Amino acid sequence: MKLKVNRDSPTPIAQQIETGARAWIAAHGAGGGRRLPSIRRLAATHNISRNAVIEAYERLVAAGLVRSRPGSGFYIADSAAALISQPAATNGLEEVTNGLWGLFNANEHTLKLGCGWLPSDWREGDDLTHAIRQVARKSRSGIFEYSTPQGPQDLRDLIQERLRPLAINANAQQIVMTGGGSHSLDLLVRMLLEPGDVVFVESPGYYNLFGLLRLQRIHVVGVPRLADGPDIERLEALLAQFQPKLFYINSVFHNPTGSTITPAVAHRVLQLAQQHDFQIVEDDIYADFQHAPTTRLAALDGLNRVFYLGSFSKSLSSSLRVGFIACPLSRVQRLVDIKMLTSISASRFAEQVVTTMLQNGSYRKLAERLRGKLSYQMALALNMLKKANWAIHTEPAGGMFVWAKPPVDMTPEALTELAERCSVTLSPGHLFFADHQPTPWIRINVSYIQDPRAKEFIELAS
Amino acid sequence: MKLKVNRDSPTPIAQQIETGARAWIAAHGAGGGRRLPSIRRLAATHNISRNAVIEAYERLVAAGLVRSRPGSGFYIADSAAALISQPAATNGLEEVTNGLWGLFNANEHTLKLGCGWLPSDWREGDDLTHAIRQVARKSRSGIFEYSTPQGPQDLRDLIQERLRPLAINANAQQIVMTGGGSHSLDLLVRMLLEPGDVVFVESPGYYNLFGLLRLQRIHVVGVPRLADGPDIERLEALLAQFQPKLFYINSVFHNPTGSTITPAVAHRVLQLAQQHDFQIVEDDIYADFQHAPTTRLAALDGLNRVFYLGSFSKSLSSSLRVGFIACPLSRVQRLVDIKMLTSISASRFAEQVVTTMLQNGSYRKLAERLRGKLSYQMALALNMLKKANWAIHTEPAGGMFVWAKPPVDMTPEALTELAERCSVTLSPGHLFFADHQPTPWIRINVSYIQDPRAKEFIELAS
Repeated sequence: MKLKVNRDSPTPIAQQIETGARAWIAAHGAGGGRRLPSIRRLAATHNISRNAVIEAYERLVAAGLVRSRPGSGFYIADSAAALISQPAATNGLEEVTNGLWGLFNANEHTLKLGCGWLPSDWREGDDLTHAIRQVARKSRSGIFEYSTPQGPQDLRDLIQERLRPLAINANAQQIVMTGGGSHSLDLLVRMLLEPGDVVFVESPGYYNLFGLLRLQRIHVVGVPRLADGPDIERLEALLAQFQPKLFYINSVFHNPTGSTITPAVAHRVLQLAQQHDFQIVEDDIYADFQHAPTTRLAALDGLNRVFYLGSFSKSLSSSLRVGFIACPLSRVQRLVDIKMLTSISASRFAEQVVTTMLQNGSYRKLAERLRGKLSYQMALALNMLKKANWAIHTEPAGGMFVWAKPPVDMTPEALTELAERCSVTLSPGHLFFADHQPTPWIRINVSYIQDPRAKEFIELAS
Repeated sequence: MKLKVNRDSPTPIAQQIETGARAWIAAHGAGGGRRLPSIRRLAATHNISRNAVIEAYERLVAAGLVRSRPGSGFYIADSAAALISQPAATNGLEEVTNGLWGLFNANEHTLKLGCGWLPSDWREGDDLTHAIRQVARKSRSGIFEYSTPQGPQDLRDLIQERLRPLAINANAQQIVMTGGGSHSLDLLVRMLLEPGDVVFVESPGYYNLFGLLRLQRIHVVGVPRLADGPDIERLEALLAQFQPKLFYINSVFHNPTGSTITPAVAHRVLQLAQQHDFQIVEDDIYADFQHAPTTRLAALDGLNRVFYLGSFSKSLSSSLRVGFIACPLSRVQRLVDIKMLTSISASRFAEQVVTTMLQNGSYRKLAERLRGKLSYQMALALNMLKKANWAIHTEPAGGMFVWAKPPVDMTPEALTELAERCSVTLSPGHLFFADHQPTPWIRINVSYIQDPRAKEFIELAS
């Protein structure tokens, strides 16, 4: 192993060794088994301290790339091939956050065709304003005090009611309020996973999650997402190779493909979860966009090994930050402990506003209206894309997203440029893949489809 | 090393070995240097798999208790003595969260003399309600949309203005909005620390932080807190022994002692930070309770190695969840990346409510009134405690807390029992110490002192 060690670089020696060793592993022996130079020899060859080498090797062990066999030395781990092909934790993370920054900072005057939220002119203020004023007027504790650790009982009771039509039998004791979907994921990652663990994600899938997992030094393995849910054949093959702790599944109106898991696939996933002993996070934050409920993993499983996530950010308000987790009762205490240690509590005010709108029926009516509007927009979008000969991954039965590809061969860069010329901002497609592979597919948010800029872009790219 | 291995136990073998080895290290060789049995021998003696032993040894290495010397074997680490005396990560964590649950779940009819927030009858609703209604009426984006990744520019500008009288020259680009003080700490822990790192905390100090650090597998080392700040002599001695990444200091109206750091101690701490290359988190969430500003670490240091935390939870509302971090400019991007990956954004609505109250002057007036009330209550509390011959750690110049001890010898359990008989809920004193040592000292929140139950309790315990 030849390394370049630069003593004058601001990069610590240990890190230089680690980087060099990663490159060496990738180039020479990712199949596993090959022995690394001994600490003594590497230190002597490069005239560096043994401690720096030890530190670098320990990091490689922690990353799952290298296996230490005490008394014998360090060897490339069997799993290295799968891991080394991934972007390094930091790079992947920066790409994801750059994508997020891009969407948030996009010029006010561009059309956010690739974003993950509804346009502001869809937002109806009256019911929400009314609820806010009511809580502000009536509830001193609502505007001033910490919420309870688990979240208010009355709100959890209302959520229990809302889960019933989905055939999810969670009682209020199994429900923990959170500060939205991303916060829910973060809490679960911290409760269920250790650095070095393997997590299966859907690919394409929710890229913020990939970044979050890399931040926590979790190994991310992508399972292809098909029109009926995760690709079961590929899942079985990957289970022969990896022992995941968790599989994250966006079951209904999947982000970004818009597809919905079928009962048969859901059943098979749960069978495999039992057989291979992994947990499932079922992300169902688009649930309220669905007209008639379909099968949830949490419904089949009875919240045994499924952690079910819901949110009010997509339908009601992204500003309030209210979401929830329904989970096995045995996990509630620990989950709430982590929530308290990391944020004390969620916003009692926001929780009371949501409670008010669930109680007075205005949330139910809002969701109905949104479903109607989204169905209409989805039909328009599919029509427009088909006319322009775009390829469509799945024809979604509802929700916000279509995953589509222009009919002409175009590099992702050329597509982004074309979009910019039309004043359209996209989410970079490659971010949706666990391995960040370049792709001509893009996520289209159908709620923006009636804007002339969307039409112009779709037609020009065909 | 004799281990009990029980094959029928639900506890994995590796974990049984780890627990046994920890006990052996604590009992026999916490001074460091002693060699552990070889993996081969331990596996043979107990007829267990080598993999289980390897897994246990690797965990001990990760915990800093054991050092692997490749080619030679495993040895007790020099730092083991300091680490083994700490409660195990999980136990410490549960104790902390139990303490928090206790306060949150305390009977409505008990007096929360030990809690960390103002009584609800101190809360003045009019200005806050007014601001809430104004935002709800005027700002469609405020009630619906995600906030920006770093937080709204106008709010960060206002915070920059508020830091000026404290001689902290942070520009708005250096300020990142968060969901309150605990969220700020969590973001910083995740940005600055790795599992196994050493962090210095003040002891007594903020116990939620101790739990958070243990959750992240950080080694917590306590530095005694004196009336003028951290004990410099002890700090120097500990720096000869440990290389901390971070020192967490609650500089003004310290929780739980109420003491405030002096300029001389602040200067010395910063000198040591430079010399030993550690970062400082300056927690200043009680800043707005102070009549005339005193020296902040962030003011001396110019936000070079100090991360400064502020919050509106203690003064304005614990329900809204608004806090901020002022930090070195070079750290902002990464900090915001972590914030986005773990929660997307804070509540734009809550941020706009705070902005409104900062702009219209109502927050400034509220803080003035609270300062006046707290000064009065503090004088009453000190008077009452002195009359009853309680010992007082420091006579605070303001803020919410006094750290005090009854004049009679009483076990912590007896004190808690006595409090319960008076319908008073305390925060368990030992939680405030990094090593959870039993203590007769308790934290008294002076804003509750006028209640007859407080008086009765203080007199009965004397």
